[in-house]
Amino acid sequence: MYDLVIKRGNVVTEGFRYDGDLAIEGETVAALGQDLKGKREISAEGLYVLPGGIDIHTHMALPVGGTRSNDDFVTGTKAAAHGGVTAIVDFTVGAPETSLGDDLSSRLETAAPAVVDYSFHVEIVGWHDSRVREMGDVFEKGLPTFKFFTAYGDSGRRMNNGQLLEAFRAVASLGATALVHAEDDDVIHRLIEQLPRDGMSDMRNLAVTRPDDCEALAVSTIGWIAGRTGARVHVVHLSSALGMEEVLRQRKANAALSCETCPQYLLLTRDVYGRPEGYLFSASPSLKTEADNQRLWQGLALGEIDFLATDHCPFTKRQKTWQGTFPDLPYGLPGVETSRILLYSEGVRKGKLSMEDFVRVTSSAPARFMGWYPKKGTLLPGSDADIVLFDPSPEWTLLAEALHMAVDFSPYEGWKVAGRPVCTLSRGEIIMENGQVTDREGRGRFLGRSKK
Amino acid sequence: MYDLVIKRGNVVTEGFRYDGDLAIEGETVAALGQDLKGKREISAEGLYVLPGGIDIHTHMALPVGGTRSNDDFVTGTKAAAHGGVTAIVDFTVGAPETSLGDDLSSRLETAAPAVVDYSFHVEIVGWHDSRVREMGDVFEKGLPTFKFFTAYGDSGRRMNNGQLLEAFRAVASLGATALVHAEDDDVIHRLIEQLPRDGMSDMRNLAVTRPDDCEALAVSTIGWIAGRTGARVHVVHLSSALGMEEVLRQRKANAALSCETCPQYLLLTRDVYGRPEGYLFSASPSLKTEADNQRLWQGLALGEIDFLATDHCPFTKRQKTWQGTFPDLPYGLPGVETSRILLYSEGVRKGKLSMEDFVRVTSSAPARFMGWYPKKGTLLPGSDADIVLFDPSPEWTLLAEALHMAVDFSPYEGWKVAGRPVCTLSRGEIIMENGQVTDREGRGRFLGRSKK
Amino acid sequence: MYDLVIKRGNVVTEGFRYDGDLAIEGETVAALGQDLKGKREISAEGLYVLPGGIDIHTHMALPVGGTRSNDDFVTGTKAAAHGGVTAIVDFTVGAPETSLGDDLSSRLETAAPAVVDYSFHVEIVGWHDSRVREMGDVFEKGLPTFKFFTAYGDSGRRMNNGQLLEAFRAVASLGATALVHAEDDDVIHRLIEQLPRDGMSDMRNLAVTRPDDCEALAVSTIGWIAGRTGARVHVVHLSSALGMEEVLRQRKANAALSCETCPQYLLLTRDVYGRPEGYLFSASPSLKTEADNQRLWQGLALGEIDFLATDHCPFTKRQKTWQGTFPDLPYGLPGVETSRILLYSEGVRKGKLSMEDFVRVTSSAPARFMGWYPKKGTLLPGSDADIVLFDPSPEWTLLAEALHMAVDFSPYEGWKVAGRPVCTLSRGEIIMENGQVTDREGRGRFLGRSKK
Amino acid sequence: MYDLVIKRGNVVTEGFRYDGDLAIEGETVAALGQDLKGKREISAEGLYVLPGGIDIHTHMALPVGGTRSNDDFVTGTKAAAHGGVTAIVDFTVGAPETSLGDDLSSRLETAAPAVVDYSFHVEIVGWHDSRVREMGDVFEKGLPTFKFFTAYGDSGRRMNNGQLLEAFRAVASLGATALVHAEDDDVIHRLIEQLPRDGMSDMRNLAVTRPDDCEALAVSTIGWIAGRTGARVHVVHLSSALGMEEVLRQRKANAALSCETCPQYLLLTRDVYGRPEGYLFSASPSLKTEADNQRLWQGLALGEIDFLATDHCPFTKRQKTWQGTFPDLPYGLPGVETSRILLYSEGVRKGKLSMEDFVRVTSSAPARFMGWYPKKGTLLPGSDADIVLFDPSPEWTLLAEALHMAVDFSPYEGWKVAGRPVCTLSRGEIIMENGQVTDREGRGRFLGRSKK
Repeated sequence: MYDLVIKRGNVVTEGFRYDGDLAIEGETVAALGQDLKGKREISAEGLYVLPGGIDIHTHMALPVGGTRSNDDFVTGTKAAAHGGVTAIVDFTVGAPETSLGDDLSSRLETAAPAVVDYSFHVEIVGWHDSRVREMGDVFEKGLPTFKFFTAYGDSGRRMNNGQLLEAFRAVASLGATALVHAEDDDVIHRLIEQLPRDGMSDMRNLAVTRPDDCEALAVSTIGWIAGRTGARVHVVHLSSALGMEEVLRQRKANAALSCETCPQYLLLTRDVYGRPEGYLFSASPSLKTEADNQRLWQGLALGEIDFLATDHCPFTKRQKTWQGTFPDLPYGLPGVETSRILLYSEGVRKGKLSMEDFVRVTSSAPARFMGWYPKKGTLLPGSDADIVLFDPSPEWTLLAEALHMAVDFSPYEGWKVAGRPVCTLSRGEIIMENGQVTDREGRGRFLGRSKK
Repeated sequence: MYDLVIKRGNVVTEGFRYDGDLAIEGETVAALGQDLKGKREISAEGLYVLPGGIDIHTHMALPVGGTRSNDDFVTGTKAAAHGGVTAIVDFTVGAPETSLGDDLSSRLETAAPAVVDYSFHVEIVGWHDSRVREMGDVFEKGLPTFKFFTAYGDSGRRMNNGQLLEAFRAVASLGATALVHAEDDDVIHRLIEQLPRDGMSDMRNLAVTRPDDCEALAVSTIGWIAGRTGARVHVVHLSSALGMEEVLRQRKANAALSCETCPQYLLLTRDVYGRPEGYLFSASPSLKTEADNQRLWQGLALGEIDFLATDHCPFTKRQKTWQGTFPDLPYGLPGVETSRILLYSEGVRKGKLSMEDFVRVTSSAPARFMGWYPKKGTLLPGSDADIVLFDPSPEWTLLAEALHMAVDFSPYEGWKVAGRPVCTLSRGEIIMENGQVTDREGRGRFLGRSKK
Repeated sequence: MYDLVIKRGNVVTEGFRYDGDLAIEGETVAALGQDLKGKREISAEGLYVLPGGIDIHTHMALPVGGTRSNDDFVTGTKAAAHGGVTAIVDFTVGAPETSLGDDLSSRLETAAPAVVDYSFHVEIVGWHDSRVREMGDVFEKGLPTFKFFTAYGDSGRRMNNGQLLEAFRAVASLGATALVHAEDDDVIHRLIEQLPRDGMSDMRNLAVTRPDDCEALAVSTIGWIAGRTGARVHVVHLSSALGMEEVLRQRKANAALSCETCPQYLLLTRDVYGRPEGYLFSASPSLKTEADNQRLWQGLALGEIDFLATDHCPFTKRQKTWQGTFPDLPYGLPGVETSRILLYSEGVRKGKLSMEDFVRVTSSAPARFMGWYPKKGTLLPGSDADIVLFDPSPEWTLLAEALHMAVDFSPYEGWKVAGRPVCTLSRGEIIMENGQVTDREGRGRFLGRSKK
Repeated sequence: MYDLVIKRGNVVTEGFRYDGDLAIEGETVAALGQDLKGKREISAEGLYVLPGGIDIHTHMALPVGGTRSNDDFVTGTKAAAHGGVTAIVDFTVGAPETSLGDDLSSRLETAAPAVVDYSFHVEIVGWHDSRVREMGDVFEKGLPTFKFFTAYGDSGRRMNNGQLLEAFRAVASLGATALVHAEDDDVIHRLIEQLPRDGMSDMRNLAVTRPDDCEALAVSTIGWIAGRTGARVHVVHLSSALGMEEVLRQRKANAALSCETCPQYLLLTRDVYGRPEGYLFSASPSLKTEADNQRLWQGLALGEIDFLATDHCPFTKRQKTWQGTFPDLPYGLPGVETSRILLYSEGVRKGKLSMEDFVRVTSSAPARFMGWYPKKGTLLPGSDADIVLFDPSPEWTLLAEALHMAVDFSPYEGWKVAGRPVCTLSRGEIIMENGQVTDREGRGRFLGRSKK
C-alpha cells in the first residue's frame, strides 16, 4: 500500500513509456507498474504522467533599470507549479564591486520562500583579478554554472574577448560550464548610430538593431574561445536560424557548445513590434522571423538545440510604459507558466515533436545539464516524485487574467491552445491540482550539484 | 500480490537503471519498484536484472557439406537459456530450386521443439525471376529480413552485383532489410590460386586467403548498392578494422548500413590457426589480428557496430576432422551459450563497455532490429518477462565439458572468466536456474514482425 | 631569320596567352614575340595559335568480332591532322596467350606508317602469373600505362576484383598507371536477362542494359582498389553524372583517380537509339541523357574531369549492318577528326570553357598524363613545334562525306558548327594546310615515356 | 634587332620556364626564344631571369608616434631595386578627420620621387557615415583596396565589429578588397593588465601579450564577417600556425579570405626578444615560435598563403632607443631589400619552394591580387619589362652596412645567404646593375587598377 498511486496514466519519460500506474512513497517514486495500490489514488486516465518541468532560465525579482521583474520567488514559483514546472534555475545578481559568494548569499535569502525547488547560475558582472578565485569558491559550494554577457556594455555587463578568454580558461579548469548571452554589442551600437533621426522612437527598430548577425557573430566568437580553452559553454536564448547554423559550425570545429531556445523565439516574430502595443514585446534578443521560428523548431526536434528554457522576466504594462524610445524599456517577457502548454499545443499537437521529445527538452535534458539526473528529469524508482499530470484534451484560450504570473498581459493573449497540466507534484506533494496551488511558501529546496 | 517478484536487484536496461524490485504477472513485466510483494519471490541481491539476450545470428541443424551443425533447436536453445539468451533468429535453408515459402514451412517444422522464442531470416540461394514475388510472400507472413551472400560461389550461394542491385531494389520497395555475408569471392579465389603448391594444406592460409581486403571491398560494393537502391542492409559478422572503416564510409555516403560483430572477432586472432588443432577454428570470415579486435571493441562501444551476434554454428571435433586441406573443413564456431559471459567478462569488467552498453548490444538493439521493441529488449511494465539474473561475481574457467552446446571443444577452452547467468526467465517462466534447464521442449514461440 | 614564323596570331596555351608571333627552327619552337622574321612566314591574323591536340584514346585497325575498326594508322592519323591532333595514343591488342612484349612489337609494326606521333597503352587480356613480370618488361621499354576492363566478360577481357587487386599492386609498385574501362559486367548481364522476349531487337535497350549504375558501381569498386593499393588509375570514357560523382567520392577517400570523357558523352543522348538508324550509334558505354551531358561539361570546366579523349573506333555503315540484335553490332564511334571542332563550337563558343581550358583538356593535360610535358602540350621555346592554327570564324556544316576518317557517316551529321583548324604542324613540318594533308606516311614517331 | 636582349638565361615564371633569350623593345617584353639579337645584349648565363618582385606591403615615411619610418620613397624604392623588387604598394595615411580622397592626394605627392612603380592601399582610420561614399570615390580613381585594423585601439585605428560589418558590406558592394591587420585588441589589453608589476619593462612580454590566440581569434571574426557580407578580405602579415588554421577554416566556411606572410614570420622567433638588443625586433604581430615558422613555410608551399610581402617599416637604432617599456617602441622591421634574397636562400635552396613557387609568391600572385597581371607578374610578349637577373651562386653574409635601406641594423645581421639580384630592369630600363642603382628619382609611376 503506497502513499499515493497515480492510476492508469500514459507514463512518458525520455527513455521509456508505458500505460499503467506509478506509485509514490514519501518524496520518491516507488514503483512503476500495473494495478498498484495506494492509500490515496489519483486517476490519470486519459492523461500523460510526466516528469516535472525544469526551467533553467528565469529571472524572478530581477533589478533592472530602477524597477524589478514583477514575479518574486513566491508568485513566480506558484506560476511554475501551474505550468507543470517543478524546478527553476534563476541567477545571482552580480555587480562589479561585490564578490560572487556575497551575490549568492544574498540571492539565497531572496529565493527562500519559493514553492518549487530552485538553484542559481552565478552571474558575473565586472571582471577583475579576484574573479577566478571567487569562481572556485562558489563552485565548491555546488554552483557549477557561470553567466556571462557579450552585450549590455552600457550597463557594464559586457565581457570583452580578452576577459572571456581568461574566464573560459577558469571555467575549463574547474570543470564548470559558462552560460553566455551572445549578441555582439558593437554591431548593435553601430546599427543604432545608423538609424535615421527619430529612429529610436519606432519600436520596429528594436529588431533592426538586433539582427541575426549580431547573435551569430557573437556565437562564432564564443565558440572560438570555447574551442580554444576547452570550456563547456551554453548559449542561452538562441533566437535565429543564423545563430543555429553557427552553433553547429562551432561544434564541428570541436567547441563544446550547448544551447537552449525559448517559446517566444519559436512562436513570435518581429512583426509584433509594428502593433500599437508592440513595446510590450520588448526583449533581447529581439524577436526574429517566421523562417527563424521554423529553423529553431527543427533544431529542437533534431536535438541540435539541447532544451527549452523561458528567460522568464515579467514586467507589467505599467512597468513597460512607453517613454518614447525603445532602449528605455525594460526587456523581458513572462513565460514560466505557459512554456509547456505552448510547447505541447504548438509542437506536439502539430507533429513537430514527439511526447518523448517534449519530456527530453523540458525536463530530462535540463536535469542532465544541471547534474541532477536521474534524481530529477525522469521517473525511475528512486527518482524525486516531481510529476505532472497533463491533460492533452481541453481546448482553451490563453488569457493573461486567467494566468498566475504577476503580469497583466500575455504575449500570447487570445491564442487557442490545447492541453494543460491538471496536477503537479513536487517531491511527492501535490502542489497544484485543478488550478489550486499550494500556499506552503518556503517548501522549495535549494539544489546544488555535487562536485565530481 | 504479483505472481513473481525479483527482489532487490540492480535492474539495468539500455534506457534506465535502478536498484529495486521487478514484478511479473503471467508472461509479462507488471511493475518496477521498491518493496513489491509476490506469491513467489526471488532474491536478486548482488545480481544484475537484465532483459534476456537476443542472438539474431544462429545456425542450428544447418546442413553443410554432407553434415549438419551439431546443435538442433532443442540443444541449441537449451544452451541459449544457459547463456542468458531468450530469443534467437536462425535462417531458413535456401536452395535454387525451392521457393522461399517452402523453405520457411520446412524450417518452422525443424524449429518447433525450441525452448526459447525464435524467428528466421529468409536465406536466398539462387536468383531468378520469381524471387521478388516470393520475397513479397514471406514478407507478408512477417519475415522482413533476407539473407544474401557475396561469397560461396562454389556452393551457388554467391549473388553477383547485377542480382544484388535487383534484389536490393525489392528489399527497399518492401521496406525489408537485407543481411549480407560480405566477402569478395574473386579476391579469395585469386589468393587461393596464388598459394604455393601445398598451400592448401597449411591451415594458416585460411587467413591469408580471406584477408581484411576481401571483407572491406565487399562492404564497399554492398554499401554502394544499398545507397543507390535505398535498401536497409545489415552486414553480418564484421571481422576487420578495414571492414569497420568501410561501413562508416558508406554510411557517410548515405547508405543505410547496419552491422554486427561476433565474440570470436573481438577475442580471437588468426594466430590460433598455427596451433596443432588450429583447424578447429575454421570459420568464415577468418579470424584477423589483435588490431582488428581492438577496432571492433571500439566500434561496439561507440555504437558504430549496432550489436553483437554469434554466428553460432557448432561442429564436433569429429566433424572437423582434418582431411588435409582447409577448404574441406566445415566452417563455423559455437557461441550462443558463451556470448554474454565473454562480453561481460572481457568487455564490461575490463572497462570497454558499460552495463547499459551491454544490454544495448545484446538485447535492445537486436530487438529493435527485428521490430520487437519494447515487447522484447527492455523491461517496462507490459514487456515480455524475458529476464536474466546475472551474477557478476563468480570467477570460473570455461571448459567445453561443462557447457551445454552439442560440441566437444570450445574456442575459449580454459579461459578465466567472471560472471554468469544464474537464472533465465522466458515470458515469466523460469527456464534456467542454477544450471538446471527446463525440459519443456516446444515451449518456444515463433516470432514474426507485424507489418507496418 | 627563323625557318618559319607564324605571324600575328593569338597564341594560347594552358599557362599563358599573348598576341604576336611564334618562330620555329627545325622541329622546335624557337621564339615567342613580336615582329619575328622567318624565311617563311605564315599569317595567323584572326587565328588562334595552339599546341597540337593529343588524343590518348584511339583504336585504329582494331580487330573486333571478325572485322576491324575501319581507320588504319594512315587514314586515322591523316584525319587527326585534319582535326588539329598531332599525337595519338592507341592500344596494343592483347590476348590471353600472347605476352605483352609480343603485343607491343606487333602493334609497333602496324602503326609504323602513321603521319603524326603515336604511342600505346598496353592492353591486358587474360590474367596469369607471368603478367606482373611482363608488365615490368614493357614498362622498362617506356610504356607506363596499362589497360584493364571490368566489362566484356564474354570476350574474356573482364578482370575480376581478385585479379585487379593483384594487378593494381603491380601498377603501384612500378609507378605506372592503370586505365580502366569501368562498367559492371554482372549488372549488364542481369539487365539483359531481365529484358522482355525480343528485347534484344530493340536498339533502345542498349541504353537500358548499360545504365549509369553499371558505370558508377564499377568506378566505386575500381576506386576502392586504387585507394587500397596506392595505384594511379585512370577511368576512360566517363559517360554519366553518377559516374562523375563516384570519381569525386573516391578521390575524397584518397584514391588517385583521374578520368577522361569523350565528345559523344558531352553531346549525344540515348534518344538517338530510337531513330531508324540508331544502331549506327552503338557504343559502350552507351549514350546517356541530357542531364549527364551537362554534368560532364561542368566536370570538364571545373577540372574534375582531367581531359578529353575520343575513344575513336570507326566502323562503316556496312560494318554496322543491323543483324537483328544490338549485342551483335560492333561498338564504337569515329571522333579523332571532329573532337576539337566540336569542343570549340559547343564548348568555347557557348561559354562553357575558356580557350585556356580548351588547350588544357585537349593538349596540356594529356601531355602531362603521358609524361611528355613540356616537350608536347605547350609552346615554350624548346617545345616540339606541334602547332595548330585554328580559325574561330567560319560557320559550316558537319558532313561525313567532307571529313577524312574512313567512315561513311557521322554521329553529328548536319550539325552547324563554328571554327576549324586551317593549318597543322607536327615537329615544325606543315602536315595539313587548308584541307590538304601530307602524304609522308611513316613520318610519325613512336613516343615512349622516359622512366623516372 | 631588339633594343635589348637578355641572353641564355633560365627564364622562370609561375606558368612556364625555358632556357634561352628574352628580348625587350622600349618598356616591353618583345620576344622569348633562342638566338635573339639585340642592339644591346646582356649575358644571363648561369642566372635566373625572373619577373620583378612586387611587394604589396610597405610603409615608407610612415608617421608613427612622433617619428617616421626612416625610408622615404627614394631610399626605399632604391633599396627595392637592389632587392629585385620593381613595384611596391604602400598605404595612404588616414586620420579620423580627413577624407580618403585627401589622404590619397597627399600621399601621391609624398611618393612622387620613387624610382620603381608604386600604388597605395587606402587606410581607413576613424569610421563615420561619409566613409562609404569616400570609399566609392577613391575606388573610382583606381584604388580598389582598403586597409582596416582590429588592433591599435589606443591610436584610434581599431574598427569594431559593428563598423567592420558595415565597411565590409561596402567593400563587397564595390567589388573591392579589404586588407585587415588581424589581432584582437581586447586580448592584448587584458594580457597586459595581467602582467606582473614591471612586466612592461621585459621585452619578452611583447610576445606574451600578443600570442597566436590574439591573431587567430581576430581572423575568426574577420572571416565570419567576410563570409556574411561576401567581401573579399586579405589578412596581412599572418604570423602564426593557429592563424593559418583559422584562415583555412574560414575558407571552408566560404569566406573569400586571402593572406600573406612576411620573411620575419618565416625566419625569426620570439627568442630574439631575450637578447640584449631584443627591442630592435619590436613588431606587431610579434614574432612567434619555430613551429609557427614551419607551418607558415608549409602554407606558402601549398598555396594556403597567397603570397609574400614585407611590412617593410624601418626604424634606426636611435629611433628604437629603449625607453624602459616595450609599448613605447616604434614597431616595424626593414625588409623590402632582403625579402627575395632570404626567400631564395632559406626557401628555394633548402628545398621548401620551387623556383616557380618563388616567382608565384613574390610576383605573379601579388600582381593578380592588384589586378595587374599579365602586364606585371609574368614575362610574356607584351608584359612590362620588369625583370630581375638573379644569380643563385654567390654565398655571402648579410650586413646592415652593406644594404641600402635607411636603417643601421638588420634583423638578419650576419646571416650566411646564397644568391642575389645582379640586375634589375623596370619597364625596360636597367635601374640596378652590380650594386649600382639609378638616380633617376621620380621615374616610378603610380599604378591604379582599371575598374572592371
